This record gives sequence, C-alpha cells and structure tokens, in this order.
Amino acid sequence: MLKGIPKIMSPELMKVLLEMGHGDEIVLADGNFPAASCASRLIRCDGHGVKELLDPILTFFPLDTYSENSVSLMQVVEGDPTKPLIWKDYCSVIKKHDQHFTSFEMLDRFSFYERSKKAYAIVATSENALYANIILKKGVVVE
Amino acid sequence: MLKGIPKIMSPELMKVLLEMGHGDEIVLADGNFPAASCASRLIRCDGHGVKELLDPILTFFPLDTYSENSVSLMQVVEGDPTKPLIWKDYCSVIKKHDQHFTSFEMLDRFSFYERSKKAYAIVATSENALYANIILKKGVVVE
Amino acid sequence: MLKGIPKIMSPELMKVLLEMGHGDEIVLADGNFPAASCASRLIRCDGHGVKELLDPILTFFPLDTYSENSVSLMQVVEGDPTKPLIWKDYCSVIKKHDQHFTSFEMLDRFSFYERSKKAYAIVATSENALYANIILKKGVVVE
Amino acid sequence: MLKGIPKIMSPELMKVLLEMGHGDEIVLADGNFPAASCASRLIRCDGHGVKELLDPILTFFPLDTYSENSVSLMQVVEGDPTKPLIWKDYCSVIKKHDQHFTSFEMLDRFSFYERSKKAYAIVATSENALYANIILKKGVVVE
Amino acid sequence: MLKGIPKIMSPELMKVLLEMGHGDEIVLADGNFPAASCASRLIRCDGHGVKELLDPILTFFPLDTYSENSVSLMQVVEGDPTKPLIWKDYCSVIKKHDQHFTSFEMLDRFSFYERSKKAYAIVATSENALYANIILKKGVVVE
Amino acid sequence: MLKGIPKIMSPELMKVLLEMGHGDEIVLADGNFPAASCASRLIRCDGHGVKELLDPILTFFPLDTYSENSVSLMQVVEGDPTKPLIWKDYCSVIKKHDQHFTSFEMLDRFSFYERSKKAYAIVATSENALYANIILKKGVVVE
Amino acid sequence: MLKGIPKIMSPELMKVLLEMGHGDEIVLADGNFPAASCASRLIRCDGHGVKELLDPILTFFPLDTYSENSVSLMQVVEGDPTKPLIWKDYCSVIKKHDQHFTSFEMLDRFSFYERSKKAYAIVATSENALYANIILKKGVVVE
Amino acid sequence: MLKGIPKIMSPELMKVLLEMGHGDEIVLADGNFPAASCASRLIRCDGHGVKELLDPILTFFPLDTYSENSVSLMQVVEGDPTKPLIWKDYCSVIKKHDQHFTSFEMLDRFSFYERSKKAYAIVATSENALYANIILKKGVVVE
Amino acid sequence: MLKGIPKIMSPELMKVLLEMGHGDEIVLADGNFPAASCASRLIRCDGHGVKELLDPILTFFPLDTYSENSVSLMQVVEGDPTKPLIWKDYCSVIKKHDQHFTSFEMLDRFSFYERSKKAYAIVATSENALYANIILKKGVVVE
Amino acid sequence: MLKGIPKIMSPELMKVLLEMGHGDEIVLADGNFPAASCASRLIRCDGHGVKELLDPILTFFPLDTYSENSVSLMQVVEGDPTKPLIWKDYCSVIKKHDQHFTSFEMLDRFSFYERSKKAYAIVATSENALYANIILKKGVVVE
Repeated sequence: MLKGIPKIMSPELMKVLLEMGHGDEIVLADGNFPAASCASRLIRCDGHGVKELLDPILTFFPLDTYSENSVSLMQVVEGDPTKPLIWKDYCSVIKKHDQHFTSFEMLDRFSFYERSKKAYAIVATSENALYANIILKKGVVVE
Repeated sequence: MLKGIPKIMSPELMKVLLEMGHGDEIVLADGNFPAASCASRLIRCDGHGVKELLDPILTFFPLDTYSENSVSLMQVVEGDPTKPLIWKDYCSVIKKHDQHFTSFEMLDRFSFYERSKKAYAIVATSENALYANIILKKGVVVE
Repeated sequence: MLKGIPKIMSPELMKVLLEMGHGDEIVLADGNFPAASCASRLIRCDGHGVKELLDPILTFFPLDTYSENSVSLMQVVEGDPTKPLIWKDYCSVIKKHDQHFTSFEMLDRFSFYERSKKAYAIVATSENALYANIILKKGVVVE
Repeated sequence: MLKGIPKIMSPELMKVLLEMGHGDEIVLADGNFPAASCASRLIRCDGHGVKELLDPILTFFPLDTYSENSVSLMQVVEGDPTKPLIWKDYCSVIKKHDQHFTSFEMLDRFSFYERSKKAYAIVATSENALYANIILKKGVVVE
Repeated sequence: MLKGIPKIMSPELMKVLLEMGHGDEIVLADGNFPAASCASRLIRCDGHGVKELLDPILTFFPLDTYSENSVSLMQVVEGDPTKPLIWKDYCSVIKKHDQHFTSFEMLDRFSFYERSKKAYAIVATSENALYANIILKKGVVVE
Repeated sequence: MLKGIPKIMSPELMKVLLEMGHGDEIVLADGNFPAASCASRLIRCDGHGVKELLDPILTFFPLDTYSENSVSLMQVVEGDPTKPLIWKDYCSVIKKHDQHFTSFEMLDRFSFYERSKKAYAIVATSENALYANIILKKGVVVE
Repeated sequence: MLKGIPKIMSPELMKVLLEMGHGDEIVLADGNFPAASCASRLIRCDGHGVKELLDPILTFFPLDTYSENSVSLMQVVEGDPTKPLIWKDYCSVIKKHDQHFTSFEMLDRFSFYERSKKAYAIVATSENALYANIILKKGVVVE
Repeated sequence: MLKGIPKIMSPELMKVLLEMGHGDEIVLADGNFPAASCASRLIRCDGHGVKELLDPILTFFPLDTYSENSVSLMQVVEGDPTKPLIWKDYCSVIKKHDQHFTSFEMLDRFSFYERSKKAYAIVATSENALYANIILKKGVVVE
Repeated sequence: MLKGIPKIMSPELMKVLLEMGHGDEIVLADGNFPAASCASRLIRCDGHGVKELLDPILTFFPLDTYSENSVSLMQVVEGDPTKPLIWKDYCSVIKKHDQHFTSFEMLDRFSFYERSKKAYAIVATSENALYANIILKKGVVVE
Repeated sequence: MLKGIPKIMSPELMKVLLEMGHGDEIVLADGNFPAASCASRLIRCDGHGVKELLDPILTFFPLDTYSENSVSLMQVVEGDPTKPLIWKDYCSVIKKHDQHFTSFEMLDRFSFYERSKKAYAIVATSENALYANIILKKGVVVE
C-alpha cells in the first residue's frame, strides 16, 4: 500500500497500467468472462466488481480522446431481453474523468473476444452483472 | 468461478488451501504487513479485508483441533493503547466453524514474523484494522 | 484436502476449473487419448476412470445451457461395431446436475482432436472403456 | 499407458522410481500429510489410497535388504488409542515382494517429518486411514 | 534402475513412452539424423544402436494395429545402391511383438523429416547403419 | 506513464514500493555502490541522481514514524575530510513529507552493506555525490 | 559505471547496442509510445528524454551509411498542426556524428508501429515532446 | 580445456557441433553480421576472426559431400568493387579437410540472411574482413 | 557425432568435461548409485557400463598428476567378501593414459557420497559390477 | 561491435563491468582454473589469453585506489620453481592505467579460490601461462 494509491490497485495492476502506451487496451472482465484463456497478461481481482475498479483506474489512466472508440462494450445478443443497467454507472464514472466522452463502441460477442485477445492485459473480476465487460483504450498523458 | 465456491476464493488461494496438510500454516496479513518479503508463497487479495476472507476459508479449511495453538494473533506491543476490536469478530467466525475453539495463541511481533516466514503461504489483504494479522494452522480432514 | 471438496479433485484440477470462463472447454480423456500431445494445459489423473471424475466436476462446474453443444463425444468410427455403454452413465450423471440437458454433440475422431487442442485443459485419466472421451463446455455461474 | 505397467503408475512416478538409487527414500503420504511443504519432489496421486500404490510400486522397486530399516512408519503418538490396521496390509504386500522383510522401523512424528524432507520424493495420496504414511528405502537391482 | 525394466530404458524415455497416446509417434534416429533440430522432445541415447532399443521399447509399446502405417522407414534415395540390411532385423523384432505386422510404410527423405518434426519425441542414437531411422506409431493398450 | 505519477517512477519501482510493508527497507544507491552484488531485487535508474528520486518516492512512501531509525546514511570513514553536503538536501526533502523527522541513523560502511543485502530492493542510480547512499524504512499507511 | 561510458548508458542498453549488427534497428520511444506491447526487447529509461540518449548512443553506434533510410521518424498525421521542433535537435546531433546524413525517412503511424515490432530493441523514455519517436539503423563498424 | 581439443573451441561450440546432424547448417558470422537477431542458437566468439575458427571446426565437422552446396558465401553486391581475399583462405582450409570440395555456393545478401535464420546455430566472431560470412552444411560421419 | 570423438561421448558430457578445471572432479557412477540425489550436474548414460566410458574420457581428460589422489574408489565395506575385479580393468585403462599413476585413493562409503555431492558432475551409468563407482580429478592441460 | 569499444569486449563482459560497483571483484582466470565451478557469474573468453583482456578492461575499469589490495595474484606454491614472467606484463599494463599502483596482493592457492567464489564474475580465458590468474577490485568512477 502507498499514500494516495487506492487499496484496490494491486502492485501488478499499477505496473501494467504504467507500462501501457497510447492505443494499448485493457479489459475489465466480469466473473464469467473466459479471461485466463484470452489474456496475454492476466491480473486477477477475485471478489471485486468492475465498478469498484473503474473509478480508481480512470483516476490514473487517460482515455484515448483522439479515438472515437476509447471505451467498448459487449453488445446484447439478439433476442436477449437483458438491459445492462451497469452501463449507466460506467457512463457516469467515465464522464467524471473525461468530459469529452459521449458514447460507447458496441462490439458483438465474438469481436469482443478477438479484441480482448489483442489487449495488453485483462483484469479478471468477480462482477456478476451481465454484459459487464468493458475495454479501455489508453490515451496520451499530457503533463 | 464455480458453483458453491465463494467468489473471493481465487483459483490460486483454493489450490494452496488444498495443497496444505496437517500442521501447515497460512497467514492472513493486513495491508501493512511485510507480506512480500516474508512469504514463501504469496497470494494477493488487494482491496479486501481479513474478515471477508476468514469465513469462506474456514468453510473449507479445518483448524488443527489437536493443537492448542491453531489460531495465532500478534500481541499488542507494550505501551500501545490499541484494543484490536477485530479479534472479537475473528472469534465469532472461528467458533461458527469450530465449536472447540477457546482462545488465541498470542505471539509478540518478532515471533509472529518468524512464524510467517515458515508458513506455507501468506495472503496479502488490504485490511486496515491494526493488529489484524492472523495465522491459521490446518487440521485433519475427517470425512 | 479440504472439507466439502471430493478427494479426487486435485489442487491443480480445482484451480483450472475456477480459472475457466463462459465457453471454455475441458476434455476428460480416456487412457489411450493422446492427451500430452494435444493439451495446452495437462492435468494427469492416472489410475482413475472418467466416470469417477464426472460427478464431482459437475458439482462445481456449470454446463453452458445457452449452447446446444455443451457436451461432446467422439462418434463411433464407421464400421466399428462398438456400442459405448459408458455414454448412458455419462447421460445420467449430467442430467443429475443439469435438468435441461437433452443430447450430446457427436464429433468425428479428427474434429474431436482439433477441439481438444483448443480446449482450456485436458484431464488424462486411465479410463479403459472405448469412445469414453468427453468435452464439457463451461456455462455461466448465476449466484 | 504401456503394456505391463499398472495404470496407476503415472509417467512422473515411474521416472522418479527409475532415477532413485541405493539408499534413496520415497514417502507414500496419506491425505492429511503436509506433502507439499515437505517434498523436494512432489508427485500427486489424488483420489488414491496408499495400499493401491504399494503393490505396483514394489513390483518394480527393490527394498534395501542390506539395511534393517528399509520400511518406516509413523509411531502412534503416546496416549492415542488408534490401532493402525492398515499396517497389517502393508506387511502382507511387502512380504509378497520381499521374503526377508521382518519388521518396520518406527519413527516418532517429528523424526518422520525430518526424514520426509530428505527423501528423494513424496507421493501425495488421498488415503484416509490414520498413521498410514510409509517410507520405502531403495535397495540394489541385481539382474 | 528398476526390477523388470531393461537398463537401456532411461527414466526420461520411460516417461515419454507412458505419456504418449493412440496415434502419437516416436522416432528412433540414427547417429547422423538431425535429431536436435527436428525434435519437439529430444531423448539422447548416445553410444547405442537402434536395434538395442527397439526390442525393449516394443515390450512396453503397442503398435497401432488399426493403422496400416504403424512403422515407417526412410526410402532409399534413387540411384543409391545401398541395401539396408538392418530392416530385416527390425522386421524380426517387430513381428516378435506384433503378429499382425506385415510391411513398413516407406517415406521419402523429406516426408520423413516432416513426420519427425510432428512426432511426440525423437530418440537420438549413435546407430551407424544407413537408412536406419524408424518411426513407431503408438496403438491402444488393451488390458 | 499515468496521470499523477511522476515520470521518473518506473513501473517496476512503483510495483516494488506497493509490495513493501511495515518495516521493509529500500536503498537508494549512488553510482558507485555495489548494487547488483548486494540486491535481492534490483531496480536500475541509470542517469538519475538520488535527489531526483527521493521527493517523488516520499510522496507515496510513508516513513516508519514508530522507529527512530527510519532513514539511514553511510557514516564518513574516519580520516576522510569529505562533508557530504547532499545530506542537507535529503533532510529538507524528508521534512517536507514527514514533520516528525529529526535525525538520520548513521551506519558505518560495513553495517550499511549488510543492511542493504537484507533490504527489499536497491535502486541503482548514477548519483555522483559521495556518501549519497540512503536507506528508507517503510511505515504504516493510515488512510 | 565505467570510465568513458556516459552514465545514462545502462548495462543492458550497452549490451544490446553491442549485440546489434548491420541493418538491425533500435527505437527510441517517447513516453506515450506503446513500447511494452511492441518490443521484442524492452529497455526502460524512465525519467529521461530522447535527446539525452541520442548523443551518447551515437557516440558508439554507427548509422547505416549504405542505406538512405538510416534514421526514421513518425510523420505528422494529416490535419494535425503540430510542428515537431525536436526533429531539428535530432538533426544536429546526428550530423555531429555522421557528416553524410541528409534527411529522415518519414513513416506514417502504422508503418512506424510495424517497423518497431521488428526492431531489435525499443528504449522506453519519458520524452513528452510530440512525434519524438525515432528509429536508428545500425551500420558497419570500420576500425 | 581438454587434451586434443583446440583452445578456441568453447564447451558450448563443441556441444552444438556434436548435436548437429546430416544437413544441419552453422554460420560463421563476421563482426558486423546481425547474429543476435538472426540466430536460433547464438555462440559468441568475440575477439576472434572466422579463419581462426574454420580450421579447428573442420577438424571435427564433416562437410556434406552429397550436396553440391556444402559451403555458402555472401555474393558481392552489384556495383561493390570489393574483392573478398579471405575466400581464398577459406578455400585452402576447406580443401585441406575435404579433397572433394570444388566451389562455393553464392547467395545474395537477403538469401544469406534467410538461410542463417534457419541454421542450427550462428557463431558471432569479430572478423573485420568484408563478405567474410560463411555457412557450413554438416555431412555424414562415416567411422 | 563428430570426426575423432567417440560416439559414446554425448554433447553434454563433452561440454561438461571441457568446462571443468584443475582440481574439479567427475564421478562415473554405477547403476545403483544414488546419482540423481547427489549430483549438482547429472549426465545420464543409461545402458552403458563404466569401463566403456573410462577410456574415451581419459583420451581427453588429464588426471591431476600433482595430487596423490587423482582417482578414488569406494572401499569394500568391512565384512563384505566382494573382490571388485573391475578395479584391475580401471587400473589398466588409467595407466594407458597416465604412466605416473600408481594407486587409487580408497574412500569409505559415506566419504564417497560426500565427495560425490561436491563433484562438478556425476555420470549415471547402468554398470552392474559392485563397487564400480570411480571419481576422477582433473589435472592441467599442458599443450 | 561499437565504435570505441575493443572487439574483444563481449556484450556480456561490458554489461558485467558496468554493473559492478566499488569493492566488487572480477577474476581473469587462466585456462586451467576451475572457473565454471567457482563462478557466480561466468563469462567465457575461450581462445584468448589474460593479457589481451587486461588492457581493454582497464581502459574502462577503475582499480580501487583506496585499497592496498586492488590487484591480487596466486602465490607460487612452496617448492615450485616456476617464475611467473607474465606478472611483469600485468604490472606494466596496470601502471599504464593507474599510476599509483605499487604492488600485488599475494594469495595462497586456497585463499585465491575462496576469493574467486565471492567475486562478482569470473572471466574464463584459455591463457596457458602458469600462475596467470588475477583478481581486479573495482574502484570509484570520479567524473
């Protein structure tokens, strides 16, 4: 633990976020996502939800404001009546850190898997909301 | 995730608990414990407290009922007025799983460190209560 | 060993089942299956049959109820008079854990090998029944 | 699997037995033995008992007939009324393979642990009989 | 060394033979074969010929009686007057262990190299007979 | 790079600081210190001085206020007229982050080496001031 | 540190430069470049700019005078008004070491990424100038 | 060092030459060759020329007399007036060990790189003659 | 294989002999010696006897003529009537390579084990003569 | 290779010299020294003598002028008439780089071995002069 670093940020997660560069992506995966089979780098956060991680991550992690697709979600499969309420929460947290954010990129299930395999890292949470996986594309640190 | 396994139990934690035998010890360390420098096997549970872990662990993990020292705590240093309230919670959780439990073994700070270095594994939590470290000695599975 | 975990579930097997996510597959291979040459992750269970493992695994492991092909078998090769009686046993065990289960997906020998190479893990048993290999696709944990 | 090799003999177990020389020891540990923390080489046989392994191992593995202590057991702790019936079974199996065998070397619990740490390998079974751990000292192959 | 296991069978060779399954192949390569550059698993048997290994291997290793190509040789290159006398010896040894054996599959040099690269293992001997390389395909253990 | 993390803090340095616990020590070594031969964990910061690192590290890293020896320096060797002016700078930076800081623990050269070997990590800088090595003992994060 | 070697040249950087041969390329990446995800060999120089490294590197590292593209830059993206002033500095430093240098090869963003992935190594700096990434192609040492 | 083995033959070089089989190739690379980026196995011989190595290597290493291309050189690039005098020396050394040798295979620069990447090993020398790289194809040991 | 190197000399054995220096020792162990548990470097020569190895090794390996104990044997245990005839063969082979050799150093069983643990390497043969283990101390190469 | 770095300085040697700090020692070992068994870090320079290395190393490597024992040699064994002429050469080379050098520290053979085991690295040459081993203690870089 360190002063000013939220406790949920593990040493490995902080290291991975620091290593990432412009355009690299990180996946916050829910508890049923096949994280271990898709990840080139896997960070486990068992027992936590995605929302608990999103805010502290975005405190440090700039989204790619140059891209229109800086945040991606998994589209609800056709015929599935689920309304992923958690997306609203994601939207609020993101807007708090990035005023320019307007909308999510929606990926169908298989495109989402392919993107996840190319991501720099996947964070495996125990989130139990449905369609709760989210991909963040890193932007430029301008300080 | 699996049916019947609490979400906070990571694959690595479950594996380590299964590998341990009679007399092996595991340390649930608070957020300020020097876990990485003491552990022969380190399991990180950043963002969680010790209490959240104690109950699910004891659901699977038998305490050593043959020993009088199946659960150990770090003694309050002389002169320190701290009253570690969390110990009462520990007591309740332990009694729920082991009716024969009566009292903790108290170890001074340096003895606690030495025991931790010999333990099979240390679980590094972000618990912020003081004197919240606890050592569990594994008993026999009798089924 | 732990309370409530069947003894046949090795630490490594339990860890692998916990790591798997929605859509990941595991192969329970019989004693003649080329498990070591096909597996990306190999778990040896020498001396055991597939049936002994199927029930304890399904106690924890949800089948993919969204897919029509959550359980796959190797088709009897044309001209081979073998009647794999063990399939009936598999069916009973699966139905005990998943009421919605209706039928197996049948794969010819070479398709079965290809699927096995992509599986998350292969469990190498010493099962000596013929055509006794089985693939389980993991579903969603809904708790 | 191979012709003439019992199915319970895993590739790793067979390799370890072949590597051992005159005077090297192997421990067949019961399910509560702290095998993972004591072993310099660990071979897991989850789901099996010690007896199932003893006979096939002794088919290949010569006991040290030059030593009076070729087979060692863990002494019943003083005050413990347990009568380890399994020892009789061990005796029968051993005598079947080694006519000169007369008696076991008895080690107290702590001496047994120390010897196990120096052994070439420990086989971790799920044996649930009490005091079922056994150490075999390898003899000379005279062919 | 173990009772009943020929001394030429190294621990690593025995382990590899046990790991192989139905359809897996092993190459017994002569002393000039590019074994180290072709092998995914390499077992060195320097100082031995192929014949010394063939008989003890086939004592344990079932050939694939279902396939017509359970044993393969490297065809004599066109124009080369060599008559590989060693093939007759191979034939005798194989027939001793497998009555159904009738003929070898003949592979040209480059096909032989490609097959070797896909084999489970290559055993590098110091055999100095020409065209002495041989591929064995594992069959089913039916006991 | 991340928002709010000084650029000089490498991913590995940040990870190591997060892993350390109460009582663990880190050495900021000057350019002539035998860092590679003393360090159990080595972090290279070639081209930087110790002062450039001290301030950003102390922004995150709490000193051990319970100990009287939270910061240690290498004593000037007897007879050496050097006056290490850099110590004043160290003092100012430390006081900025820890008001309770009063004085350094002075270690002779050989004691300093021994303490460095036990430290959690050594940061190898290119600092060229003399007697510029400094040891920081981590305190408790109280948030 | 060594006599005659600039302090900013880390042991790993010096080793990598020595290992490279004619035609091998090294990327000096700015602080936002996705260095960790592109590099086959990664050398971190956190806290430093590219300019600080360019001069000492070119003191030892000959550019490929046979090639017209011995130094490459990332083209300004169309529509972006940025004028990368740092390029002038690069030009001066390069001309100081290589009189024959005339102009940079300009690569569009994606070509630059592809070239970086094939480079022998990437040096990750914290340079915050825009379009500050630079690729150096090694020439022949003629002494 | 050993009796009868030239001192320049390092343990690693001798091992690699022994491991190679019929048709495997080894590259003796000059000091500017991109050896580290091309080699699947790299043996460094810094400070030595190619000629010093060629004679002791050919004392042990048979060239492939069956192939017409047992020794390959890098063709002088069109327009380059260089006359690689070292080739004559190579020719003398080779003829000393192989009376049947008549001529070199000439490869253009890029074909030479591709062949080197497939070679069993590359020996990185500090040879400073131009066009001094040479590829040797191993023949059959007939003793 | 190489010209002039006996086929029984494996690449690994040759490498180890070349790496050894003045005073380093190598053990040629018989088939019952606990080679794997004693060796810091283990070279397996399954299927061969010690005599087959001794002559080719001594062709390259100089004995330590400065020491009176350049060759050591394991003393016959008191009361054991064995007359190790193989020692005469060893004597002949050694004298062929080293005219100054006069007698063996005799070590009791436990001293032999201790020396073996400190040896640079142990060669595990399948030699079945009794008391056939032998230690060779390397001398100086004077060429 | 690089401009200004002598060709005999391998990438690994340069890296090791850069990593060393004040008081660390490096051994330049002759061809009969047991380098592989003594070294914690081993750098092979087969085919070279110690003298060829001493001058380029001292161009970069400062000797410890504060110590009276910055250069150590192995004392001639009592009764041995050898006069190591190479020491004069060493003396000349050292004085060229360090005017203050006056005399060598002489170590008996066993003390020399012990010091070598604690050295940061050993460079294994093929030097054939007797008593040619030399230890260099690194000083401070003062630039």
